[in-house]
Amino acid sequence: MPTVGVIGGGQLARMMIPAAITLGIDIRVLAENAGESASLATTMVGNYRNVEEVLRFAEGVDVITFDHEHVPQEVLRELVSRGISVQPSPDALQFAQDKLAMRERLAGLGLPMPEWARIDSAADLDAFLADNGGRAVVKTPRGGYDGKGVRVVGSSAEAGDWLDLGEPLLAEELVEFRRELAQLVARRPSGELVAWPVVESIQRAGVCAEVIAPAPRSMGKVADVACEIAVTVAEGLGVTGVLAVELFETTDERLLINELAMRPHNTGHWTIDGSTTSQFEQHLRAVLDLPLGATGCRDQWSVMVNILGGPVSGSLADRYPRAFADEPTVKMHNYGKDPRPGRKVGHVTASGHDLDDVVYQARAAASHFDDQNIG
Amino acid sequence: MPTVGVIGGGQLARMMIPAAITLGIDIRVLAENAGESASLATTMVGNYRNVEEVLRFAEGVDVITFDHEHVPQEVLRELVSRGISVQPSPDALQFAQDKLAMRERLAGLGLPMPEWARIDSAADLDAFLADNGGRAVVKTPRGGYDGKGVRVVGSSAEAGDWLDLGEPLLAEELVEFRRELAQLVARRPSGELVAWPVVESIQRAGVCAEVIAPAPRSMGKVADVACEIAVTVAEGLGVTGVLAVELFETTDERLLINELAMRPHNTGHWTIDGSTTSQFEQHLRAVLDLPLGATGCRDQWSVMVNILGGPVSGSLADRYPRAFADEPTVKMHNYGKDPRPGRKVGHVTASGHDLDDVVYQARAAASHFDDQNIG
Repeated sequence: MPTVGVIGGGQLARMMIPAAITLGIDIRVLAENAGESASLATTMVGNYRNVEEVLRFAEGVDVITFDHEHVPQEVLRELVSRGISVQPSPDALQFAQDKLAMRERLAGLGLPMPEWARIDSAADLDAFLADNGGRAVVKTPRGGYDGKGVRVVGSSAEAGDWLDLGEPLLAEELVEFRRELAQLVARRPSGELVAWPVVESIQRAGVCAEVIAPAPRSMGKVADVACEIAVTVAEGLGVTGVLAVELFETTDERLLINELAMRPHNTGHWTIDGSTTSQFEQHLRAVLDLPLGATGCRDQWSVMVNILGGPVSGSLADRYPRAFADEPTVKMHNYGKDPRPGRKVGHVTASGHDLDDVVYQARAAASHFDDQNIG
Repeated sequence: MPTVGVIGGGQLARMMIPAAITLGIDIRVLAENAGESASLATTMVGNYRNVEEVLRFAEGVDVITFDHEHVPQEVLRELVSRGISVQPSPDALQFAQDKLAMRERLAGLGLPMPEWARIDSAADLDAFLADNGGRAVVKTPRGGYDGKGVRVVGSSAEAGDWLDLGEPLLAEELVEFRRELAQLVARRPSGELVAWPVVESIQRAGVCAEVIAPAPRSMGKVADVACEIAVTVAEGLGVTGVLAVELFETTDERLLINELAMRPHNTGHWTIDGSTTSQFEQHLRAVLDLPLGATGCRDQWSVMVNILGGPVSGSLADRYPRAFADEPTVKMHNYGKDPRPGRKVGHVTASGHDLDDVVYQARAAASHFDDQNIG
């Protein structure tokens, strides 16, 4: 039986479990704590920064892959030096771990991006601000996600605390965008690559709130350019498994790369119900170097709405009687986490041929679970 | 978190696990042996005939349900007497456990069936044979499945070994049928009932080999009658959870009830990929008395082909590279069982709008796994 070891026990690892069961893959999870989202497949609770623990976890697996991008390079490289297949490889993952390294590499590939600069001092940031209309996005190159480690500033003083850390920062132009898109692809070590249709991602407070698949009015040029960009990234950086490329569609109709993720991604959750092959099944196939599955849409439209926070009291399941009765066609995904403000505790997906209907159904279902209406 | 205890660790329990993970349901399995198909959710290995063991297993669950119909009535009734929710109830399950009791009850409901008789002696069987053209199907009322406990005879001598057991037998007319159909419904304890489209089931050597959903040329009267029959059975017998009614469509266009199963059923495996709500998710919703999901088809056609036996050497996964490369749209379901001649070790499902194409794809994918071509 093929055996996949997943480092990290969050909802991405959790959603790999059904795909693993279906394909008869032995999935083992290294979680930081007992009782995390992927607990059903957790075979070890330990510290992914500790090379000895990770080596012990990796015994007997065919491949190591990830629920998150935080495993240190020295741990990853030790696994590789012991002959363990790590997918994506440390060489690829470094660009998902360090946004500055990512910008430098993507620039080398000639890919379209917002204006950006490496910032080593207040003077660097002031100069960037002067060149970019007085406002910029400043990011810590490491450890950020879901809006963390990201700040919009109008002066170098507003990033003073980060500058004081003595690490370089990344400054980016504040892009005037019409909307955000995401292009998911999957790639095998032996080279095969497939792409899902490009999707629209609606963010609120820096967090993905809704995804529409495919992105409305994205046929033709937008879809082609998004796909071409993601293929160039995947091949240029040697990514294996699922790669998500988050894109800005600018008001002047260019696509610029915002962020990368080298793992199943929130903008791909719709694929569980909406595509012939889910991103979780595909990720397992890809990291095991098995032929990839078809990526077409099952329906004209699929809309995913995140459940952010969840009920103020009680559990998601307490809301099932009303939510299920009201929306019998909507698919519920519960991550088995305790509700907490802003926390991704689940998502719903609706599919169908009328986009207005599908959006309505997905939002109506989600509204049963979110006491803080994000509408 | 809602907690469901499943008695039996086979592939039906296994396929409930992904649905349970997705809905955030705590699923616990009582398996007869370690390492069975549903091992990932197995919390106890024990004997389902032993009331003490089953009571221990049932501690803390919200409902007990089943992977098979073999749990003795005395065990079921003890659970109920302790206030444990058992779905389907022992009162309903008795009719799935005893084919003679089933025939008697269905006759009481006025439902269409093959000619049948209770057989207590060779004389009874000879009389039945004389009335039915000299040939009959003889069944042991208990313990049969997949063609076991079923025999076609032309004389009472051919059932002599079963008659000698001193238990009554069931004799049934050898129906001249055009094809076999199956109607699946799901029903909640509080009464809500939903039906999937009627399907065609193609049997080989008494075992389900392929299912076409929906059954070709079944619109209108056939679908209505099949649904009406299953609704009458579900309500008349008080079935909860998924109910499968296997039907003969006779050469003179009547539908006759062949067998019943009160659990997810092989003829419903197509729903995982082909319906908005899979029979496994629906079974969990139904036994927890949650509102039921929509039962429409995701595509015009879905075709499921069983993998019977599997590879003569090696594992199913050894065949993934060629099977996945050849059929990227087909969905593989691996039950995690060792290959053995005739054993149900997995299935594949193809979906699409052209039935010939879909049948071809499903058979082509299955052929990679079955060394004994079942043609």
